[in-house]
Amino acid sequence: MSSQSAIQPTRQADFPEWYQQVIKAADMAENSEVRGCMVIKPWGYGIWELIQARLDKAFKDSGHKNAYFPLLIPVSYMEREASHVEGFATECAVVTHHRLEAKKNPDGSVKMIPSGELTEPFIIRPTSETIIGAAFSRWIKSYRDLPLLINQWCNVMRWEMRPRLFLRTAEFLWQEGHTAHETADDAQKEALQMLKVYEDFMRDHLALPVITGEKSESERFPGADNTYCLETMVQDRKAIQAGTSHFLGQNFSKACNIRFLNRSGVEENAWTTSWGVSTRLIGTMIMTHGDDDGLILPPRVAPSHVVIIPVIPKEEVRDQILKACQDFAQKLKEKTFHERNIEVEIDRRDENGGVKNWEWIKKGVPLRIEIGPRDLEKNQVALARRDREHRKKDFLNMDDAIAKIPSILQEIQDTLLQRATAYSNENMKKIDTLEDFKKFFTPKNENKPEIHGGFALCHWAGSREDEARLKQEFKVTIRCLPFDKTFQEDGKCFLTQKPSSKRVIFAKSY
Amino acid sequence: MSSQSAIQPTRQADFPEWYQQVIKAADMAENSEVRGCMVIKPWGYGIWELIQARLDKAFKDSGHKNAYFPLLIPVSYMEREASHVEGFATECAVVTHHRLEAKKNPDGSVKMIPSGELTEPFIIRPTSETIIGAAFSRWIKSYRDLPLLINQWCNVMRWEMRPRLFLRTAEFLWQEGHTAHETADDAQKEALQMLKVYEDFMRDHLALPVITGEKSESERFPGADNTYCLETMVQDRKAIQAGTSHFLGQNFSKACNIRFLNRSGVEENAWTTSWGVSTRLIGTMIMTHGDDDGLILPPRVAPSHVVIIPVIPKEEVRDQILKACQDFAQKLKEKTFHERNIEVEIDRRDENGGVKNWEWIKKGVPLRIEIGPRDLEKNQVALARRDREHRKKDFLNMDDAIAKIPSILQEIQDTLLQRATAYSNENMKKIDTLEDFKKFFTPKNENKPEIHGGFALCHWAGSREDEARLKQEFKVTIRCLPFDKTFQEDGKCFLTQKPSSKRVIFAKSY
Repeated sequence: MSSQSAIQPTRQADFPEWYQQVIKAADMAENSEVRGCMVIKPWGYGIWELIQARLDKAFKDSGHKNAYFPLLIPVSYMEREASHVEGFATECAVVTHHRLEAKKNPDGSVKMIPSGELTEPFIIRPTSETIIGAAFSRWIKSYRDLPLLINQWCNVMRWEMRPRLFLRTAEFLWQEGHTAHETADDAQKEALQMLKVYEDFMRDHLALPVITGEKSESERFPGADNTYCLETMVQDRKAIQAGTSHFLGQNFSKACNIRFLNRSGVEENAWTTSWGVSTRLIGTMIMTHGDDDGLILPPRVAPSHVVIIPVIPKEEVRDQILKACQDFAQKLKEKTFHERNIEVEIDRRDENGGVKNWEWIKKGVPLRIEIGPRDLEKNQVALARRDREHRKKDFLNMDDAIAKIPSILQEIQDTLLQRATAYSNENMKKIDTLEDFKKFFTPKNENKPEIHGGFALCHWAGSREDEARLKQEFKVTIRCLPFDKTFQEDGKCFLTQKPSSKRVIFAKSY
Repeated sequence: MSSQSAIQPTRQADFPEWYQQVIKAADMAENSEVRGCMVIKPWGYGIWELIQARLDKAFKDSGHKNAYFPLLIPVSYMEREASHVEGFATECAVVTHHRLEAKKNPDGSVKMIPSGELTEPFIIRPTSETIIGAAFSRWIKSYRDLPLLINQWCNVMRWEMRPRLFLRTAEFLWQEGHTAHETADDAQKEALQMLKVYEDFMRDHLALPVITGEKSESERFPGADNTYCLETMVQDRKAIQAGTSHFLGQNFSKACNIRFLNRSGVEENAWTTSWGVSTRLIGTMIMTHGDDDGLILPPRVAPSHVVIIPVIPKEEVRDQILKACQDFAQKLKEKTFHERNIEVEIDRRDENGGVKNWEWIKKGVPLRIEIGPRDLEKNQVALARRDREHRKKDFLNMDDAIAKIPSILQEIQDTLLQRATAYSNENMKKIDTLEDFKKFFTPKNENKPEIHGGFALCHWAGSREDEARLKQEFKVTIRCLPFDKTFQEDGKCFLTQKPSSKRVIFAKSY
């Protein structure tokens, strides 16, 4: 891949490979030598920091407090909830020893081998319901201790056989909220409230048009009574589950013995929830907004909003141009965009302008500004927007540019959401017969198995086994039983012909 | 322990047990059932968040960027640096399997056992030099890529045989900076610069009087050419290493193959550093400032600066008093203390005032304010400072209180540093003979082995073996070869009588 060119391959040619190349070109993350574990590089991690800051504020504003629980979970804890351990058993990293010991090989070389075997092995947390449940059981005695509203930012590990940067990695970063309540109703409300927090965040900050709803029984979190989800369509028309919020009923409070004296003085089990989003959000965002030139960042989560590229045709003007860039940057940094000072970077590297421009295009920076000798004469800057064709430049008077940039950033933010929403709507279709269903999900081109219809909105009254059969045959699952009222209408299941009062979403997914 | 009383035992009676009880009474953290791993509760985690926010800003202001690297390290990576693997081998948690499998017991019950053995085991990072070194070796090609300035916030694990909340736990939270440079001199400067960042932070925010210097050879980080440290004395006169910054020379760049083309076009090994502080800082702070009533928090790292306790002698005044508290809190929240809005909590719980007061005393909140009917009549509040005797109250006009609280908080901050500095200075003594050394470190009272002299400032020219002998006999080590010029003077080693040009610090330590 030449440094002055778009991403190869294009989205159309090979979407999964395009995705990998966008991440590489934007210098966001890379695979490490540790199977399935990625290194998140500063540009990728900067996005995660912005996601964290915003969500953390929303969690705190709704009364949650952060805490931290052990990385390791005794296997016996996992065993307490039967469907939970079953759900995670195949992807657990297991710690069995607590030291290394030097062992001499016959050839005299030394090798370190595991030693100090543990009486009970630990797993690295794939999620923390059981270990946090154990703490809740110690902390909660009475209804006065409820609701208990806790959040944890941490790493988790699920051994993945087919890892993909950000979307599915063995180790990933996330937050997991865990709450306990007096009544089922309180816990339900909490689970739905947090779903709303996620929805607002994804729409307003990541510019993702998400569909909220609940999971079918077979797609629920292992141990949940109900899983609420946020599903979004990316540019290969597959679905990504961007976040989930679980109503856990009394399953974990029974498994972990979370009991309290209620207002009538009777001991009972608490009702719990858990909810989480992860670094997967970054992958979702890349797949939703990126184009054939690379990453496009919604301004609200861009580590830099604006990059200034000095144009220095000859050495004599260098100081003058750099000073103008510096002054312009200084004034711009005093402006704010959505509760954050505008982040400006000046690219002073000794590199040609074309190379620099392409690098920043690929990194998805919302605005690129060039300042050269002619601009200086005219007291103007050349401004390029990442949401438009990359050659297009607007020439703006310097003061005007500073005044307008916050609203231009908001325009970009809005454009990205509109585009993604339009794309998503265009690729949702009501499907009413098995034949249409087959057609919808059968690739038109055998060489591009990933190209298919999108989201099929279907009446459904099939069994769990019917669902499994469709999954087997078409690699398609029920992504979501949407809350949106427009999905409610009487009809017949496209497979079983049984009556149905609501359409569900079938799609291929990551 | 009654809810309306001081901590039992007192510091004097049993310092280690006092420490545990302070943490319990302040509801900061607790031991989990996972050996050596703690649960950090919201009050403790809130302090960590403030530490993080401040240090993160200092790291970014000095050009460092955050990134994230894998939790798991292949054993072969650790083996690359001989003294490194030797240093950590006895405390490594080892992952050997990647799944669990159900096994039926003869009695029909099912047990989950480790399955899917890995061809090469992984250890959970005890520190990340080797895994980050592997990434640096991919990222660095030329001097143009240097300096590379990276920081990581994460959890690490070192299997501890004698864990103690915050001070020494199997899993702990920390940050680890890792940097690579063109020259030894650049790397040395970086290591010292970050030591200064830590020193300023610990003095100005945690109110810790730290002594900076370097470690003796035997106390260095495994794999470092030089370890710079920050040592502080806590109230049982032991030393705590509050942070370290390592000049790693070319040891890890050789082990990890971090090579670059220098300005003359010749390939050479980079020079690296690493530096870190951890949740241990919280333990250090507790042991430094706490008193027999419990925790005392320096205002700059207090999750709440002020707690307001409504005094409601009869039901009729409840609404009026609560409204006055609310109004007062609102005005106070608009004030700032050191770049943060003042954090105010109103304790509305249905609990008597004495109980509430004691809870907040034990939690170390800098200021407690009571507002009752008589205060309201006089337009005043009753203010109690945590750095003074707990019964003392100042009555302040409401507006005056709001105006003065920021400076009162700074006074408390200053008082804590002054007190700790005075205590530390009082318990440092120049020791010039082995006899005095013995006396200094021999407990006066056999039942209180922890009571001893403090920091012994000694001329030293002994060998590594001499050092090991002193450690064996007195449980005392060289904590630090201080930078401070006042330690430089000609003299004779107290053990070997050899000439010495500088005093070092000997102390017992955590």
